[in-house]
Amino acid sequence: MKLNKNFRNLQDSYLFATIANRLSDYLAAHPDAPVIKLGIGDVTLPLPQVCVQAMEEASREMGVKETFKGYGDYPGYPFLREAVRGYYRSYGVELKANDVFISDGAKNDVANILDLFAQDNTVLVPDPVYPVYVDTNVMAGRKVVYISGNAENGFTPSPDPSIDADIIYICSPNNPTGAVYTKEGLKEWVDYANERQALILFDAAYEAFIEDPAYPHSIYEVEGARTCAIEICSLSKTAGFTGTRCGYTIIPEELERDGESLNQLWLRRQSTKHNGVSYIIQRGAAAVFTPEGLAQCKENIAYYKENTRMLAKVLDEKGIFYTGGKNSPYVWLKAPGGKKSWEFFDLLLNDLNIVGTPGSGFGENGEGYFRLTGFGSREQTEIAVERLRKLL
Amino acid sequence: MKLNKNFRNLQDSYLFATIANRLSDYLAAHPDAPVIKLGIGDVTLPLPQVCVQAMEEASREMGVKETFKGYGDYPGYPFLREAVRGYYRSYGVELKANDVFISDGAKNDVANILDLFAQDNTVLVPDPVYPVYVDTNVMAGRKVVYISGNAENGFTPSPDPSIDADIIYICSPNNPTGAVYTKEGLKEWVDYANERQALILFDAAYEAFIEDPAYPHSIYEVEGARTCAIEICSLSKTAGFTGTRCGYTIIPEELERDGESLNQLWLRRQSTKHNGVSYIIQRGAAAVFTPEGLAQCKENIAYYKENTRMLAKVLDEKGIFYTGGKNSPYVWLKAPGGKKSWEFFDLLLNDLNIVGTPGSGFGENGEGYFRLTGFGSREQTEIAVERLRKLL
Repeated sequence: MKLNKNFRNLQDSYLFATIANRLSDYLAAHPDAPVIKLGIGDVTLPLPQVCVQAMEEASREMGVKETFKGYGDYPGYPFLREAVRGYYRSYGVELKANDVFISDGAKNDVANILDLFAQDNTVLVPDPVYPVYVDTNVMAGRKVVYISGNAENGFTPSPDPSIDADIIYICSPNNPTGAVYTKEGLKEWVDYANERQALILFDAAYEAFIEDPAYPHSIYEVEGARTCAIEICSLSKTAGFTGTRCGYTIIPEELERDGESLNQLWLRRQSTKHNGVSYIIQRGAAAVFTPEGLAQCKENIAYYKENTRMLAKVLDEKGIFYTGGKNSPYVWLKAPGGKKSWEFFDLLLNDLNIVGTPGSGFGENGEGYFRLTGFGSREQTEIAVERLRKLL
Repeated sequence: MKLNKNFRNLQDSYLFATIANRLSDYLAAHPDAPVIKLGIGDVTLPLPQVCVQAMEEASREMGVKETFKGYGDYPGYPFLREAVRGYYRSYGVELKANDVFISDGAKNDVANILDLFAQDNTVLVPDPVYPVYVDTNVMAGRKVVYISGNAENGFTPSPDPSIDADIIYICSPNNPTGAVYTKEGLKEWVDYANERQALILFDAAYEAFIEDPAYPHSIYEVEGARTCAIEICSLSKTAGFTGTRCGYTIIPEELERDGESLNQLWLRRQSTKHNGVSYIIQRGAAAVFTPEGLAQCKENIAYYKENTRMLAKVLDEKGIFYTGGKNSPYVWLKAPGGKKSWEFFDLLLNDLNIVGTPGSGFGENGEGYFRLTGFGSREQTEIAVERLRKLL
């Protein structure tokens, strides 16, 4: 029996393990240090009550013969697919009923969608980047090329016509940089993809953090995207579903390559390798899209964003370059004094008792950068801001 | 952008679509016909109350900041992994803590585990078979060879030393035939796999239907299995979780191929392409393994099995060959009078208003066979049995 040898080409990602080790070493030496963690990309506020109630009710339905649910529809229950359509409609995007597929979360679909594509495609990934885009393609033996995000292009690179890419990843608002593409910026990519029959995988996991109307929530706000883009989104950051697990993937019915419908291929993939998302969780997800659910989510996001704004403010005061901080839970800052990412990590940990994420963990272009998040508590973030103000 | 052309080699499975079409045609012509459906493989009894309560409670925890859960452990929460270990211990199998991975359901893992293996493996699949084994390998471009299940070997074929297989699927109790391997029968496969460093993918989805102590619930009851077998199981049939979605996969820590740990490869695969199972659902799943949960599940299974026993009894009376009917929810019968599977389907639908599943839909060797299930209600099954008694 032969193993998939591509796994051997994976870079062992010690990023978060190394962070955890350095922190535990520090805490062993300084057991009472008041450490504040601003490194995680995980939410901390509870679910909206309307979601909780919907899942309690759905759990009870599962305990009664008349309302019990067995296997559901592979692409998700119509009540949730319609709720997602309604959400898109709220920012002006009209989807078709069959465009929407419900998932266990964006990460699964970002990874599993690759089943539809041949091995000999060239994959274009921005650097710095969410490591999953690279690792899932390396596992499948695909060639990955990079396009540089950097201070000059505000970490929103434009297409390079000299690169002949087949599959293009775009994450906006971006993880880790917090940078957001404008419609014009995305239009360049849509045109590039349509011209060469490439495909865009658009990761919209952080769209709910956008408040500036200049920025699109969905790539389908851009003309031409329905013939070149798959959009993958999640309720993890929108509604605090990181531990509840639900997302959705949009594959427009008219998206074809090699004369085949990608929507139909994905349906075939999912009906063969998946059995749908829990009814209970789908009920909780549908509650997100009620007026009450949306209002509570907006309140939670405003809380995280106020944290992020406070972090950005101190950088503004000190004249430190950063991206994000506004339409994103992340602040991506240039480490002052030309410090390397890990040097700055050690400085913050040792001198300020603040834990963040070294930018070099997200790719070569992340060297010298550092990520802080607004997902902590207000109190802790306020203390962190005061400490940063003194140091920087 | 090039598509995965292996999808073009998939046989379009019209089995259940064709069944649905023939039924709706019949009902259009006979709108009041009292049709009884014994074709589905889906459960109909509600979840145990202890599961419902656990999920209600977990839903409420998600609505309170102090008990809210974000991202969980990739392999599942320790409370559920330990509960699964305890369940295995109850029939004498001692697993290691890290052997257990929690999943969204057996189908996902049966499919996704293939990511670990090279394309140029030879896959051995019994015929008749659950179509997912074949389709997932065809999608990945792997060569599939078959071994015949038939009346002579009681649909539990033994290894054929002339076939050089790398990956071997065994489903016991079997879907669709209901046949169950003895320990001795499985030992032949374990020895075959260990000798040639092949790998067994053991699908134990129906293990909870075994009552005869002569039959193993787990392949790890067989000596040598920890060095050659991955076991995939589900709460779908054990506890009625088809719409709730939770299962588990066992990869023994000592299972290695090419000097690599399959347990570690799977952990890497899951941490890259998956984000764990919902906390709420894992709490519901853990409740299955409480004394109260197990008692309720046993009661539900006894209900389905009594239905199955009634179906088997009428076949015994009429001297019709079948497998299953005892340690399985399925009865797999030889259509009387040498009828083909679809002929018998039409006969049952038209003359008895009973819907079953033609065996030919599960592979060439299924031709002339027919599957009935015990998942209907008692009342409907009793009526069906009376109708069958008159016809056969």
